[in-house]
Amino acid sequence: MSKAAEGRFELGDFELQSGTILPDAFLGYVTHGTLNDSRDNIIVYPTWYAGNHNGAEPYIGQGKALDPDHYFIVVPDMFTNGYSTSPSNCVPPLNGINFPLVTPFDNVVAQYQLLTEQFGVTGVQLAMGFSMSGQQAYHWGALYPDFVARICSICGSAKTAPHNWLYLNTYKSAMESSEGWSNGGTENWSPKLLAVIASIAATMAWSQDWFRQGSYRDAGANTLEEFLAGTAGFFETWVPADLYAQTLTWMAADVSANENFNGDMNAALGAIKARTLLMPCDTDMYFRVADNEAELAKIPTAELKVIHSSWGHMAGMPGANPDDDAFVDAALKELLASG
Amino acid sequence: MSKAAEGRFELGDFELQSGTILPDAFLGYVTHGTLNDSRDNIIVYPTWYAGNHNGAEPYIGQGKALDPDHYFIVVPDMFTNGYSTSPSNCVPPLNGINFPLVTPFDNVVAQYQLLTEQFGVTGVQLAMGFSMSGQQAYHWGALYPDFVARICSICGSAKTAPHNWLYLNTYKSAMESSEGWSNGGTENWSPKLLAVIASIAATMAWSQDWFRQGSYRDAGANTLEEFLAGTAGFFETWVPADLYAQTLTWMAADVSANENFNGDMNAALGAIKARTLLMPCDTDMYFRVADNEAELAKIPTAELKVIHSSWGHMAGMPGANPDDDAFVDAALKELLASG
Repeated sequence: MSKAAEGRFELGDFELQSGTILPDAFLGYVTHGTLNDSRDNIIVYPTWYAGNHNGAEPYIGQGKALDPDHYFIVVPDMFTNGYSTSPSNCVPPLNGINFPLVTPFDNVVAQYQLLTEQFGVTGVQLAMGFSMSGQQAYHWGALYPDFVARICSICGSAKTAPHNWLYLNTYKSAMESSEGWSNGGTENWSPKLLAVIASIAATMAWSQDWFRQGSYRDAGANTLEEFLAGTAGFFETWVPADLYAQTLTWMAADVSANENFNGDMNAALGAIKARTLLMPCDTDMYFRVADNEAELAKIPTAELKVIHSSWGHMAGMPGANPDDDAFVDAALKELLASG
Repeated sequence: MSKAAEGRFELGDFELQSGTILPDAFLGYVTHGTLNDSRDNIIVYPTWYAGNHNGAEPYIGQGKALDPDHYFIVVPDMFTNGYSTSPSNCVPPLNGINFPLVTPFDNVVAQYQLLTEQFGVTGVQLAMGFSMSGQQAYHWGALYPDFVARICSICGSAKTAPHNWLYLNTYKSAMESSEGWSNGGTENWSPKLLAVIASIAATMAWSQDWFRQGSYRDAGANTLEEFLAGTAGFFETWVPADLYAQTLTWMAADVSANENFNGDMNAALGAIKARTLLMPCDTDMYFRVADNEAELAKIPTAELKVIHSSWGHMAGMPGANPDDDAFVDAALKELLASG
């Protein structure tokens, strides 16, 4: 596999959908592979909740759908993840919990600038993503219909569903309820708040079946308490205010919530010209198969391929489960081979 | 319907499974109907999480399975619900967050004393329950096999499943993380903690489909925020330390975790002589159909009747949804008519 290259793209003063200016904004990213002479071998794969530009790596490699010998794969960091403009690195007064709401729309507009200005490309073969980055893939298709040949959303949706919103509100309200939150939010985690965040994540990210069959033990935890401690350890690497801002981004996700479509979901999904592949997991607790099914008829050229797995939402997480990775890889190969 | 009668049964110093003595312990309860001369028309129906002895009422009435013209229906309050011995009413030093762990086993042992000593009965026609009280129904069947003719668990399980435990741990860790918890826990709720508790409950108690189809609006909330405010209002009526103690009871639920069975679930479920009816809901997020299916073969005379409903766990909550109530009522009639 060709070595990944890290980069940073300066956006300057970047106007958000809300009208707020994000000063000296930038996107972190990595690329895999080489941009060809005709500049037409691009795949864009943004990051997801509590993820960064390294997260896509398990999907990338020689012989895989995302083969860096053939494709130039760009993995832009979402705003708020600490590698792009975020509460933890923004200039005052927009730092910490004063960071403005950044939507998936804002992210994709910035990513479009990255691709067109930094790499001078006029289209992408595939815009894809898992979870929150799956939501960005819909935005790519709807906002830049002539730029995007294919999109794939894995365990994602065009809009955050009401139940998904409630789940996210649990993170949000837990953070807001913790001691000292209103005074900062960029400080270190309190162990008690981390325990809540880990418990929410553990309850929702895998399926009930996964726990019933004891798969957390295969994952190296002897007990549920150990599993929770491991989950807390993962979140501890995040700056609390960054995770908080990212939660708000997810809650606001709606491909139709912009001046292009004014809340008309039929219009937004109908605008997608890309060949579209939706891959929900049948045990995902918050991105539901039924959500994708409801979208299917509204997207001109769309197909649904359900991941059958006990891994819940994590089925779509690169590297979580080899069987699910292989299933997605085969589907992506087919998608990329299609005209 | 014959008017319900409230009562209070003094247990004296009650030894818990743990060996701790609950001093001057008591059970609150209500009864519906009249104990017949042969004292053989008893139904026992304990309370569930965040419930009290009024909660069963929608299931009780002339012409219903739980007909007070035919049955003497006893609804004992669980320890920790404020109507039986609880953190909020226990004598120091066991009050507040120092209240000892009370298990479903302890509750059912106390309820057995109520039925035999207060009412002098030698058996029950039916021990039933929803959710945590469904868990108690299994205990009735396994601990007093010759006393119980029938059991019915609605959206319950013999043991709290790992995923269910994680869900409950979210309540537990949220309460533990709130400001001032360690100093009391019997004080009033902080609005911020209430918001977290409401968000957890809203995320888990109904199904994703229920929210997708906008049923929260049928329930009188214009928005998800209004729905959350209503849910918070419900929990606000609870003393925080009582809810905390009840959460621990639920987490500890395991019909085999006692000296009778020493953790042997096959032995515990195999000890049940009662005709057993298990009624999970197919969209319940924490008491899963698969949990009941795994139990089915271990109980000598058991049947599974799945409630097909978008109401999730709430499908089994008396009065939540008329269709689900009617389905359960018909199943209970059949169960009570069986020999």
